[in-house]
Amino acid sequence: MPTPTISTDEVIIILERIRARHPLVHCLTNHVVKNFTANVLLALGAAPAMVEHAEEAAEFAAMADALLVNVGTLDEPQITAIRRAIPSANQAHKPWVLDPVAVGPLTVRTKFAHEIVALRPTLIRGNASEIIALAGQTGRGRGVDSGDAAEAALTAARHLAKQSGGAVLVTGPIDYATNGSEIVACANGLPLMTRVTGVGCAQGAVAAACAAVADSPLAAAVAAATLMGVAGDLAAHISIRPGSFATALLDALDQLDAATLRREAKLS
Amino acid sequence: MPTPTISTDEVIIILERIRARHPLVHCLTNHVVKNFTANVLLALGAAPAMVEHAEEAAEFAAMADALLVNVGTLDEPQITAIRRAIPSANQAHKPWVLDPVAVGPLTVRTKFAHEIVALRPTLIRGNASEIIALAGQTGRGRGVDSGDAAEAALTAARHLAKQSGGAVLVTGPIDYATNGSEIVACANGLPLMTRVTGVGCAQGAVAAACAAVADSPLAAAVAAATLMGVAGDLAAHISIRPGSFATALLDALDQLDAATLRREAKLS
Amino acid sequence: MPTPTISTDEVIIILERIRARHPLVHCLTNHVVKNFTANVLLALGAAPAMVEHAEEAAEFAAMADALLVNVGTLDEPQITAIRRAIPSANQAHKPWVLDPVAVGPLTVRTKFAHEIVALRPTLIRGNASEIIALAGQTGRGRGVDSGDAAEAALTAARHLAKQSGGAVLVTGPIDYATNGSEIVACANGLPLMTRVTGVGCAQGAVAAACAAVADSPLAAAVAAATLMGVAGDLAAHISIRPGSFATALLDALDQLDAATLRREAKLS
Repeated sequence: MPTPTISTDEVIIILERIRARHPLVHCLTNHVVKNFTANVLLALGAAPAMVEHAEEAAEFAAMADALLVNVGTLDEPQITAIRRAIPSANQAHKPWVLDPVAVGPLTVRTKFAHEIVALRPTLIRGNASEIIALAGQTGRGRGVDSGDAAEAALTAARHLAKQSGGAVLVTGPIDYATNGSEIVACANGLPLMTRVTGVGCAQGAVAAACAAVADSPLAAAVAAATLMGVAGDLAAHISIRPGSFATALLDALDQLDAATLRREAKLS
Repeated sequence: MPTPTISTDEVIIILERIRARHPLVHCLTNHVVKNFTANVLLALGAAPAMVEHAEEAAEFAAMADALLVNVGTLDEPQITAIRRAIPSANQAHKPWVLDPVAVGPLTVRTKFAHEIVALRPTLIRGNASEIIALAGQTGRGRGVDSGDAAEAALTAARHLAKQSGGAVLVTGPIDYATNGSEIVACANGLPLMTRVTGVGCAQGAVAAACAAVADSPLAAAVAAATLMGVAGDLAAHISIRPGSFATALLDALDQLDAATLRREAKLS
Repeated sequence: MPTPTISTDEVIIILERIRARHPLVHCLTNHVVKNFTANVLLALGAAPAMVEHAEEAAEFAAMADALLVNVGTLDEPQITAIRRAIPSANQAHKPWVLDPVAVGPLTVRTKFAHEIVALRPTLIRGNASEIIALAGQTGRGRGVDSGDAAEAALTAARHLAKQSGGAVLVTGPIDYATNGSEIVACANGLPLMTRVTGVGCAQGAVAAACAAVADSPLAAAVAAATLMGVAGDLAAHISIRPGSFATALLDALDQLDAATLRREAKLS
């Protein structure tokens, strides 16, 4: 494998900073995954907070260390809150992550995602269909599943990364992170992770935690892919049934350390 | 036991179709159970999606394979979304399931449930009190618990099934499914299942997944009762404490197969 | 240790009453913890219900045995619902618990918490920063974490308890319960509990269940601290990883009995 631009050592430094600094991640995310997202952040060593009133969301986006915007169950009050939180985070120079869940087939969120992507997210995380749709191309998404291979979305991802000046993480059997010029592939993780709701959405929150402490958006994207992927690989050694796998995944995030990452990370 | 109208073999065919087709279930459900409902559907082999903006809910109800309407934490935006989603599902000939949580003692949801039951749900799933109240009779419900024996609700259930042209599943120590004329009883499941929040609500989502692939509403109702009931029976072999039982229930849904269903199903 | 005003025997009586009466707890709480809160109440033997439409919330607050108000993800519809539910509970002489999550740094909830604390909660549960801020002093809260030692908040807690005529539970490494004059300390529980989202919020719901059956607000506060704390201590014997610890905590709540409480409770 070629030497990746972002090395496992940089992922380890990001993990150690998360454990030392406990970055506070403001999550404006969907109803289905709020609990699991908070538990993933806590297991990793970050601090979650969901503050949803528009007025408070604006206040809090400036106080927190990073902001996650996930449009999975977007409704009008959340649109209002997101419209106030992003500029607040931007003004306070806090990173923010966009997870364009199911953008493409659904009109309200697609239009809204196009609106906010112009506010230059530090990091965008989505499956191939979502990234293609966000870049204004036509995907084949069906609900939250991706109908397009991650590889096929790389052109769209590079375009988005150049436009935003940040990084894009395209998830799939192999995750690809790009800052528009460089590309890093992460081969950790397994299909079982898609059988627990919110693993992908929680990865968006992890990406926000990483962005709060990383030296670059690309490093944050690679770290998010690697940390969740390696934790998933470890958890699958405990159980391949989805209920106990979900529990094992949280335990594995807590258990991650430098030695494990050096042994397990598959970056190229 | 008399031979039931719907056999275990038909339940097995429904499970196999879910595993093969991954029906996409649009869940307009309550806040408490969204995560668990999604995990139950994924464990069984179906695909969950919660799309809640009224405009998108209408769009998505036509795209998804089935719709679940659960009024457990009904609020005004959800009323609006449901009012748009049901006609959209009906027009696209997609099945929809009504779970009238706590209908009876609470006025807003009771009035609303009476309004939407006229839109002819494919399947109604509720405890005895809820079914009695939905049929316009007086139940003895107290919150989400049922004060009436499932048996006592059978008259109401047959009435509702005839009215809607679909099926009704009355849950209790024994679950009863009826299409207005035939009745099938399922003796699987155990009281422990009521000590994990959302097991009943998730059964409504399972019923929607079943309705997406079943040959009749009655078969879907029987399958929902049997799949959840047998999974509960299996999980209780792993643990009778509620935390680990909930995990084991998800694992058991993943593990269900023809041989297990043939051995464990208690239909009559 | 000095003999506490509320003894372990009184905590045991409260637990036994919860198991016998299954108090119905109406939870107006935050989105992140609804599922876990419901599961904690069920594991303990109480009955949860989340009824959120303002009109129904008012109806239901009079029907339920206790009300929990947690402002963690406060939004305008919830403000409206809480404004109607509290007077309804008060009029029906039902106890209600206030959990002022993140009150202090965030303006909307802080103003609202000051408004409703005047409606005399039976019990207030919060960390040191929240209790200090609720009493109108200046805390050092950062999101949902407490920057102030529980001990430092005792003056504020006594003030609030006198004002409301109820009890205040200040949580931290040691939990302190006060009715304004007496103080009881509970040394059960461990830092691991803060690494599972919603343990603190669920303790508020447990406090409401306890208040529904206790002889005094102080006894309910001590019971809530002891029941959650001892369950946490037991669960940590099963696992110190956050995913499996959360599961074990629910199992432990189910398993709590008089002998265990007598052996493990650390009241003074």
